[in-house]
Amino acid sequence: MKDLIPGKVFLVGAGPGDPDLLTLRALKLVQSADVVVFDRLVSEEIMALVPAGVRRIDVGKMPGCHRVSQDAINRILVDLALEGLTVVRLKGGDPLIFGRGSEEAEVLRAAGIAVSYVPGITAAQGASSSTGVPLTHRGLATGVRYVTGHRARDARLDLDWASLASLDTTLVVYMGAANIAEIAFQLMRHGLPASLPVLAVASATTPAEQRIASTLGSIAADIATTEPEAPVLFVIGRVVSLYDSVALADALACEGAGMAAYA
Amino acid sequence: MKDLIPGKVFLVGAGPGDPDLLTLRALKLVQSADVVVFDRLVSEEIMALVPAGVRRIDVGKMPGCHRVSQDAINRILVDLALEGLTVVRLKGGDPLIFGRGSEEAEVLRAAGIAVSYVPGITAAQGASSSTGVPLTHRGLATGVRYVTGHRARDARLDLDWASLASLDTTLVVYMGAANIAEIAFQLMRHGLPASLPVLAVASATTPAEQRIASTLGSIAADIATTEPEAPVLFVIGRVVSLYDSVALADALACEGAGMAAYA
Repeated sequence: MKDLIPGKVFLVGAGPGDPDLLTLRALKLVQSADVVVFDRLVSEEIMALVPAGVRRIDVGKMPGCHRVSQDAINRILVDLALEGLTVVRLKGGDPLIFGRGSEEAEVLRAAGIAVSYVPGITAAQGASSSTGVPLTHRGLATGVRYVTGHRARDARLDLDWASLASLDTTLVVYMGAANIAEIAFQLMRHGLPASLPVLAVASATTPAEQRIASTLGSIAADIATTEPEAPVLFVIGRVVSLYDSVALADALACEGAGMAAYA
Repeated sequence: MKDLIPGKVFLVGAGPGDPDLLTLRALKLVQSADVVVFDRLVSEEIMALVPAGVRRIDVGKMPGCHRVSQDAINRILVDLALEGLTVVRLKGGDPLIFGRGSEEAEVLRAAGIAVSYVPGITAAQGASSSTGVPLTHRGLATGVRYVTGHRARDARLDLDWASLASLDTTLVVYMGAANIAEIAFQLMRHGLPASLPVLAVASATTPAEQRIASTLGSIAADIATTEPEAPVLFVIGRVVSLYDSVALADALACEGAGMAAYA
């Protein structure tokens, strides 16, 4: 009996949603894979780039609408690779930023399967480029920080609030819509002003993108009223003060171009 | 006399170095621009993707080896756009993370020129995917933070050390090689252990990539001995503890595949 050479698994970032924000390597891998395993944050437009003959496994939902557990996903990836297949595991954003890519890699490597990563544009970058709000800007933010606002059921949101409440750092909260009231409250309790601007961006870089410009004091009420569709990202910090001027300048530039066209 | 319609400027991230890590949109823009304005962090391999007929302006250096000032770059971009050209301003990494993209955009918008951003894979993501060290990982890091370790000549390195010294957050220091001794000292003085693992990555994702695995207590001496070429990035935190196991598992997987091939 001939031993099979195990296949390889590529843990690939699909970026924030816009298929044009895939990397060239991600596209090449998607087009040459034997099988693509994807979840719910990977857009239909991106899945449309997978050639017709390639097997697709949706681990974002199962027939009965239950999510596939992480253990089940790990087993699927190991089994496919042990069949000798080249597997592309496609994840929204970047596999190594809130993507659990390294957890899947640990299981695969323990099974003797080689793993490679391909980074992707993470949601913070997608929202930033799309809205024009920079993540760092001289005089407004010397750095940027990504945290997750998600917590397991019944667990406390265990974040280091004193450290997070820094005016010099742009704070980006992923998966925080359900807990934004507590997040905003804690940041204010630890010293950030209620007037600090906040921009919530839903479905950044997709045709469904939605923006809610608010402040730390008002964001919870604004989210409750607006109920944006997931995924929602919060950009918190002085850089958001550039948002209005960006929107205004773009409107003026369009108007200028339009007028010039009639000159 | 006919008024010219001003051209548009695209502030485009070129990613960490590997041309395969460009986004599809970045490639399309580079291939359709009238002129590409680039600086020294954009690799030759990426500039090779610019079609032969397209004008290129290198603002990374001038004939006499002086760097072009930010004011001069701003003037060049405004002038080109006012000529009616489609300008791609290509920057290493992401234009909105330590890229000064939003400063250039402010000047352009003030001149009535429309600006769009295209995000790029930032160096932290390039180093992470290339070395296999995740930026977040359950139980090791609940978030990630990017800061710059660069300071203006004679200025103090003015960072919020107490906030930075957090075991739960991966800290990535850009442009910190010259000040790594002070950075490591301050982080330890504010409570991080000398044994905390640190991975320095130079020229991440390029053929010249170099890695130095160390600890907070030893990194300054290791950098002084090794003198890696810029740009150097420091990944500081518990996630770096996964680095050895990653390298080991990859070696074993290769060996296993090799043995299977002879079975």
